[in-house]
Amino acid sequence: MRPIFWENQELRLVDQTKLPTEYLEITCKTVEETAVAIEDMIVRGAPAIGITAAYGVALSGIESASCSNREDFDQAIRLAIKRLAETRPTAVNLFWALNRMEALMVKRGTLSTGEMIHAFEQEAILIHEEDIAMCKTMGHFGAELIPEGATILTHCNAGALATGDYGTALGVIRAAFEKDPTISVYADETRPYLQGARLTAYELHADGIPVTLITDNMAGHFMKIGRIQAVVVGADRIANNGDVANKIGTYGVAVLAKENGIPFYVAAPTSTVDFRMSSGEEIPIEQRDSREVTHIRGIQIAPDGVRIENPAFDVTPNRYITGIITEKGVAWPPYSESIPVLEE
Amino acid sequence: MRPIFWENQELRLVDQTKLPTEYLEITCKTVEETAVAIEDMIVRGAPAIGITAAYGVALSGIESASCSNREDFDQAIRLAIKRLAETRPTAVNLFWALNRMEALMVKRGTLSTGEMIHAFEQEAILIHEEDIAMCKTMGHFGAELIPEGATILTHCNAGALATGDYGTALGVIRAAFEKDPTISVYADETRPYLQGARLTAYELHADGIPVTLITDNMAGHFMKIGRIQAVVVGADRIANNGDVANKIGTYGVAVLAKENGIPFYVAAPTSTVDFRMSSGEEIPIEQRDSREVTHIRGIQIAPDGVRIENPAFDVTPNRYITGIITEKGVAWPPYSESIPVLEE
Repeated sequence: MRPIFWENQELRLVDQTKLPTEYLEITCKTVEETAVAIEDMIVRGAPAIGITAAYGVALSGIESASCSNREDFDQAIRLAIKRLAETRPTAVNLFWALNRMEALMVKRGTLSTGEMIHAFEQEAILIHEEDIAMCKTMGHFGAELIPEGATILTHCNAGALATGDYGTALGVIRAAFEKDPTISVYADETRPYLQGARLTAYELHADGIPVTLITDNMAGHFMKIGRIQAVVVGADRIANNGDVANKIGTYGVAVLAKENGIPFYVAAPTSTVDFRMSSGEEIPIEQRDSREVTHIRGIQIAPDGVRIENPAFDVTPNRYITGIITEKGVAWPPYSESIPVLEE
Repeated sequence: MRPIFWENQELRLVDQTKLPTEYLEITCKTVEETAVAIEDMIVRGAPAIGITAAYGVALSGIESASCSNREDFDQAIRLAIKRLAETRPTAVNLFWALNRMEALMVKRGTLSTGEMIHAFEQEAILIHEEDIAMCKTMGHFGAELIPEGATILTHCNAGALATGDYGTALGVIRAAFEKDPTISVYADETRPYLQGARLTAYELHADGIPVTLITDNMAGHFMKIGRIQAVVVGADRIANNGDVANKIGTYGVAVLAKENGIPFYVAAPTSTVDFRMSSGEEIPIEQRDSREVTHIRGIQIAPDGVRIENPAFDVTPNRYITGIITEKGVAWPPYSESIPVLEE
């Protein structure tokens, strides 16, 4: 279920816009192709975007191989980083990965162009491998929190397809299922982009983890009638006070969980934490095309000319969050104390 | 925007499965055609289902014109009523209208078959006309509750298309807009059947009332950032304690409204109140076909073989409801006192 592959200096991405009815891979040979793949959500999910952007920088190095000196080369890389940084505004892992690649370039200022191309490639592969390892570690920590036989609600796709592999929220679910095969999952379909219906249901069903697909507006009903024992979601950016930006609808799920006495967990690597941001209110929220709301796979479902809002994310205030599962352990409230210590 | 027409002893229905991209009317000449139209949601919305069922009984009378005596005639009508009662389980207006038609038949036991056919027709027309009048009266009462310049969130379609005309929740909005043209509306799209996107956005846009369409999972976000000043929804059944069954997702909207200090109103005629039911927990919830979730207008959006839940309604406990707007005035908490007095 891995969404990103690096082979023979080329980046291959599973086209997540086509799942689950079609499995297709696309190849990116340039920074521009990589940037467009992120914008068009061929690849999506905060950690996966970060990994893809790191490979994009590696591709930029390969594209700039003909530069005769490091100054020209570095300038080309900086332009590539700028292009990649403009693709999507909310997930902080994108900027985290680009900063890491740029820092490497600065630190290795004495390397030749050819050596730097190799160093970029190795660093991107390392970011990818580290992400998978972090998902496994989060799974280990998170599985401890899942009650025996629980039905877990998740929103959007924070799975293998949203990361290097294995997943954040779905990593926790995978690890919990390995320990306790009586657990099961309810997946919100997650309009408008249907990541829950198209990707989470697909991933879990393929892995043999019992999954029930519901529309977003059913989540509260199933909480109220006692079907859900825990909620686990991913994150696109976590502020230093524990406020969490995640896929639109996460806030509503969190409020409903609290109202029904159900624990609400966020699973995300520390690369998702924006330690410089004191509150979630500062997180920029991406507004996407209205056509994602008015059309589903090309079929019109709304009248012509009606006004649309399409924020891709919302912010869940820290008071609704039971715990934040990271690769360094679980942060508990008060988050203004537990989050800052996650920064090395 | 009227969804139901009775002309020349035939029932015509706007095919609401085709809106908003196509306006089509279908004709029902038999009880069976009428029952199937209700089951297939050609016509939907609690009051509109009641009106349609009443016309269905009138059609049954016409179909039974050849009965040589009232005993045979009445027996045929009772079978028709049984068939119509089996179409959809949750909206109580269906049973209310059928009971009214049956009571008329019993009361007018001395009429000839031909006279009874005429009486049924007149009664169904009266139910239809009364419904429109009740919507206007609810609009009058409800408009008083809407703050100046408010943006009102509504869920599903409780509009002209869900009633005889004018609407319950949208009747309140229409009346408020007549008084104050600075009000505006946010409409939840209302998966899986998309009544908000397809019908509410269509109705309001056609009437020139400013409407913004959002996906269901955006409602909480817009409440939290201060965009919504009131919520008004319809109802499919109201228990004697003020618990309200309405379109799936209503419960979530109500919890989010309470969490954000936003008034949450239900608008419904007293024919929606089930005075014999002491709590919403007793209301039967219709489970509909999984294909409504896995496919949108024939397009598959979920993997094959995944488990689906598709409850068409949920129950909002009375503690989340600010007021219930009826044609007899607004019922306020405690509802166990204010609801019973609505019964004449």
